[in-house]
Amino acid sequence: MRVLIRVAYDGTAYSGWQFQPNAVTIEGRLREALKSLFGRETDIIGASRTDAGVHALGNAAVFDVDTRIPAEKISYALNARLPDDIRVCRSEEVAKDFHPRHTDCVKTYEYSIYNDKFENPKKRLYSHFCYGKIDTGLMQKAAPYFVGEHDFSAFCAAGSQVADKVRTVYSLDVSRDANDISIRITGNGFLYNMVRIIAGTLLKVGQGDMEPQMIERIIASKDRQLAGPTAPARGLTLMEINFKELIPYGHV
Amino acid sequence: MRVLIRVAYDGTAYSGWQFQPNAVTIEGRLREALKSLFGRETDIIGASRTDAGVHALGNAAVFDVDTRIPAEKISYALNARLPDDIRVCRSEEVAKDFHPRHTDCVKTYEYSIYNDKFENPKKRLYSHFCYGKIDTGLMQKAAPYFVGEHDFSAFCAAGSQVADKVRTVYSLDVSRDANDISIRITGNGFLYNMVRIIAGTLLKVGQGDMEPQMIERIIASKDRQLAGPTAPARGLTLMEINFKELIPYGHV
Repeated sequence: MRVLIRVAYDGTAYSGWQFQPNAVTIEGRLREALKSLFGRETDIIGASRTDAGVHALGNAAVFDVDTRIPAEKISYALNARLPDDIRVCRSEEVAKDFHPRHTDCVKTYEYSIYNDKFENPKKRLYSHFCYGKIDTGLMQKAAPYFVGEHDFSAFCAAGSQVADKVRTVYSLDVSRDANDISIRITGNGFLYNMVRIIAGTLLKVGQGDMEPQMIERIIASKDRQLAGPTAPARGLTLMEINFKELIPYGHV
Repeated sequence: MRVLIRVAYDGTAYSGWQFQPNAVTIEGRLREALKSLFGRETDIIGASRTDAGVHALGNAAVFDVDTRIPAEKISYALNARLPDDIRVCRSEEVAKDFHPRHTDCVKTYEYSIYNDKFENPKKRLYSHFCYGKIDTGLMQKAAPYFVGEHDFSAFCAAGSQVADKVRTVYSLDVSRDANDISIRITGNGFLYNMVRIIAGTLLKVGQGDMEPQMIERIIASKDRQLAGPTAPARGLTLMEINFKELIPYGHV
């Protein structure tokens, strides 16, 4: 059967999702857990190959396995074999041909900024620390320019191999709770480093270094040079992936 | 001059506050930073000697130093010499005879519980994970029994050398935000492991293993055996210490 798992992890200690022979990766740790559980090498197809240092609460992956363990119980068996910074939150059987990267989906990311005079040691692993004034009102004015279907070439890391850089952003919300600023973005897919470049650009707006209206011109320019810097990985968390095939029609 | 510093730290990697020759401690790291900054060994008097694994956002300490650096700038100079899991959030000059353990104060601790089916990797270092149903309404019913001046012998780790076990708890609030349960307690001082034993006891109440009214009888018994287990260190954070001498009368 094909099993879909939902995976949460603290990316701090990992060289990203994707398996590399000489680095510690989320996929590598999952493969080890699968081998320990089922006694054989098992390939995994990840929905989102997050970068080094990026976190996830709801990444997804599938693998094929022949076992008498009910699909729903596999999560528990894997967790017993995983380090405590990786957790499988759910496991379920899906159609044999379900592919997490070739299925329409809605992804939600959250970028966290900690804005104070001094870094907060309890938040340092999961947020980007910024001192100095950040005006979230300005960031909120900039946010709507990102929403909709756009060619996001200006917000894609140089060197990306993807040909089609058109993506749809469904929502982008900036909120503040005391010293914590959160950027929450949903879309049908994201280019390489896209969320981190959007976060870095919104920060420049919040710091008063860029007018909110500039976003429209940067998108139109398709020029990576005009956008802001790539914000650090530690602030980024992949929150959720909703696959349209798996959810009742009309839910998204 | 005598300098009072406010110290925040992620206690995960430390054998607690207090200096030990063969262990990594917060006090040890601060002493190294002071030696690097001022060129000589400098003793530190901590307000609260937190245990291994316990965190702080507002611990306090004093040291005596002869320097031309303004007291308010010492925090910056120390931070440049400290690992990123320790931060000095403030430094100020205080009276030569100010002693952080012999000065009346109000301390605030927070104990964090993460209550879900699976552990959240991003919260694992800063909360105690509990699966299964926890009724915070029952915990809220138990909370008022702790408030007031009591002999807290039943909530003190065995082997404590302190003779007088009477302490005053000013407030104890239990709140829930989705899967996060928070126990916030303020008082004029806490016995060894007192907050963690209170948290462990409140958890038993929330899990339905103990009636809220039992708290009154446990306090009266002065018997450590009747209280619940000591909850793990990782869930505990020393939030704030307000020294009465340093704040306008009537503020607390």
